[in-house]
Amino acid sequence: MQAAIIAVGSELLTAFRTDSNSLFITSALNERGITVAFKIIIGDRRDDLARTVRGALERVPLLVLTGGLGPTDDDITREGVADALGLPLEEDEGILQGIRARFRARGMSMPGTNARQPQVIHGAVVLHNPNGTAPGQLVARDGRHVLLLPGPPREMRPMLLEALDKHLATVVPGIGVQRKVLKTAMKSESYIEQQAQPVYSRWAAMTPPIETTVLAAPGQVELHLSMTSASKEEGERILDDAAAELVSVLGDDVFSDDGRSLEQVVGDLLRSRGWKIGTAESCTGGLLTSRLTDVPGSSDYLDAGVVSYANWAKTALVGVDDATIAANGAVSEPVARAMASGVRKRLGADVGVGITGIAGPAGGSDSKPVGTVFVGVSFPGGEVVKKYRFLGGRDLVKGQAAQAALDMVRRALQAGTPAP
Amino acid sequence: MQAAIIAVGSELLTAFRTDSNSLFITSALNERGITVAFKIIIGDRRDDLARTVRGALERVPLLVLTGGLGPTDDDITREGVADALGLPLEEDEGILQGIRARFRARGMSMPGTNARQPQVIHGAVVLHNPNGTAPGQLVARDGRHVLLLPGPPREMRPMLLEALDKHLATVVPGIGVQRKVLKTAMKSESYIEQQAQPVYSRWAAMTPPIETTVLAAPGQVELHLSMTSASKEEGERILDDAAAELVSVLGDDVFSDDGRSLEQVVGDLLRSRGWKIGTAESCTGGLLTSRLTDVPGSSDYLDAGVVSYANWAKTALVGVDDATIAANGAVSEPVARAMASGVRKRLGADVGVGITGIAGPAGGSDSKPVGTVFVGVSFPGGEVVKKYRFLGGRDLVKGQAAQAALDMVRRALQAGTPAP
Repeated sequence: MQAAIIAVGSELLTAFRTDSNSLFITSALNERGITVAFKIIIGDRRDDLARTVRGALERVPLLVLTGGLGPTDDDITREGVADALGLPLEEDEGILQGIRARFRARGMSMPGTNARQPQVIHGAVVLHNPNGTAPGQLVARDGRHVLLLPGPPREMRPMLLEALDKHLATVVPGIGVQRKVLKTAMKSESYIEQQAQPVYSRWAAMTPPIETTVLAAPGQVELHLSMTSASKEEGERILDDAAAELVSVLGDDVFSDDGRSLEQVVGDLLRSRGWKIGTAESCTGGLLTSRLTDVPGSSDYLDAGVVSYANWAKTALVGVDDATIAANGAVSEPVARAMASGVRKRLGADVGVGITGIAGPAGGSDSKPVGTVFVGVSFPGGEVVKKYRFLGGRDLVKGQAAQAALDMVRRALQAGTPAP
Repeated sequence: MQAAIIAVGSELLTAFRTDSNSLFITSALNERGITVAFKIIIGDRRDDLARTVRGALERVPLLVLTGGLGPTDDDITREGVADALGLPLEEDEGILQGIRARFRARGMSMPGTNARQPQVIHGAVVLHNPNGTAPGQLVARDGRHVLLLPGPPREMRPMLLEALDKHLATVVPGIGVQRKVLKTAMKSESYIEQQAQPVYSRWAAMTPPIETTVLAAPGQVELHLSMTSASKEEGERILDDAAAELVSVLGDDVFSDDGRSLEQVVGDLLRSRGWKIGTAESCTGGLLTSRLTDVPGSSDYLDAGVVSYANWAKTALVGVDDATIAANGAVSEPVARAMASGVRKRLGADVGVGITGIAGPAGGSDSKPVGTVFVGVSFPGGEVVKKYRFLGGRDLVKGQAAQAALDMVRRALQAGTPAP
């Protein structure tokens, strides 16, 4: 079953705010086997809303609207939906008394503007609002359902769940959407796609089908699998098998199939070996160490790190030979290698990482353009140094360099290096 | 003039992600006098997109689409818009060569999947993408315009501005929305609101009115002023006066009125004095140093930093006395003070910063709950140490602690400390 979400409010069309209620609504719908076909964000105009509701009902059998149920002139959701459905609005005396009582309990009398809130679309089920004055409404028409909810999350959320589980339970399927995410590092979206597409393209035709979405960010490409299944167990089993098939073609480019981030995977690999990691960062300026310490409990495997931005700091704090810098330049393979082994020794760590590069926008040259980064990893099984050429601005170069360093550590550790 | 924004991507219809590009797009449109009538978020289905584009073009003369221009099967924006407009797709040889060259420059050959990206809607203006492989497209049809932009923000943003200012400049109105942003650090939203509201509430009734929006994030509250004016100069003058009035009530809680971030302001203060900063981070794990080095040219004032996570590292790398840690605990005012002065001395810096705290979720106690953070700043004019108690998860504690440290350095430097 498919639904659409319509968020009503001109403030949601400014540059400063957008709809966020739809994330909670989507989650609640997904858990009940309903997928979201589209979302619309629209201003406080009655004719616009009426037209939008009519158009959306031609495409999906369930609409969830949030916002525009308040007392002021620009709250037009009741009127717009009534227009769209061709149904009249009627005053509900019970709601009116309830709002009056609510104000009275706070020692106030009901402002005249609130008199619009008891307007109910003919035939609607009224949804009680324990956290505010605007009641919700659920209208059925020709086998389709329109749910009107207030905008404030604390009012909207309980009413949504009540509507879904009490009033719509007989019309929504009882099955859920299962998901699984495979994460890969340091491969391009098109490369991953080329490997994975022959596998997952077959799944779309299966019964039930598995939907696959490819999500790419700099240095990380994720494959999101989802399916609707009769039972949670069956869905999990099918997705586990599907994920295993993808891993068989993607190999160790996949670093996680259980939601863990790259820094969590690296941390778990270090902890399982009882190893410590030490970092010497130049162009990443502390970002790698900050990501490593984003993980709760990272003090188990990280004691210290050094940001050696200036050349003297690479020598004094990390032990890189002056002559190595003079002969090769600070951004070079020998310096990255010396930073990794030097910081490993200086910090008494098992794994040492050195990063040196040109984050830009200045500092590049023909032979070493902006984005040139060398990463070294020194570990009990040996050492590895790689040269990268990252595209994008300063933040992207920093981000990809930190990601590359984490992935090099992961691969070195997963390659089965022996305990020291 | 009105526009609509359509974000394409099934991942934007999950419970985990939603469209955020539309905020930047809205801002750019507003600045050029264009308002956003509605926004639609839609999945990767060609027929759905075609229908949506057709419906949207009946209501507004300008559509901005983001996403779905990648190389994979589920990137259907080119096809969907071509269907909606009844125009054929044609291969653009120049784009194909450009993508090939891009892969070649990185020592790779173009994967076959990228062959779909050079498909251009008949008659479209091709928008060059310096930050990725997917070109943008601008299609005109019956006096209406459809702009196709990629999803990744760093690719989308420059192409949007190019399209608006170069290719659409003759069709968009020349009157603009002027904006000014005041940024404050380490004060609560309600405190800033209480100070500022009596000032800005009068502006809404002015002719022309100034709109004020308060935006709060952990550790930072911003006041966004905007107005539509007949001329850029008049708008700027009115907003400058308005900003000055707000600064007169908010005082030095305002750190920026010109768009600069807190780390940029701190960097400029250091550079103008010819000073260097050195950092010793425990619970922030490198985040402060990473933020300082996010600023281009930060090597002018930052040579090095230390992440001293373990106690031995605080002693060995920063020079904190063992006895100070033993007597007070690692998370304490004396240790933050000793870290600040110690790292200043060890790194030969003019300003030293020490941060020690409990980021959580474990490690808290009754006397020092999770979120307890001490920040010390040692500088030529003296030293200051503050105790904080931050709320929220690990990432929020780290973020607020780095923000607090930056703001303490700013205040110390702005207080007019003499040059050394």
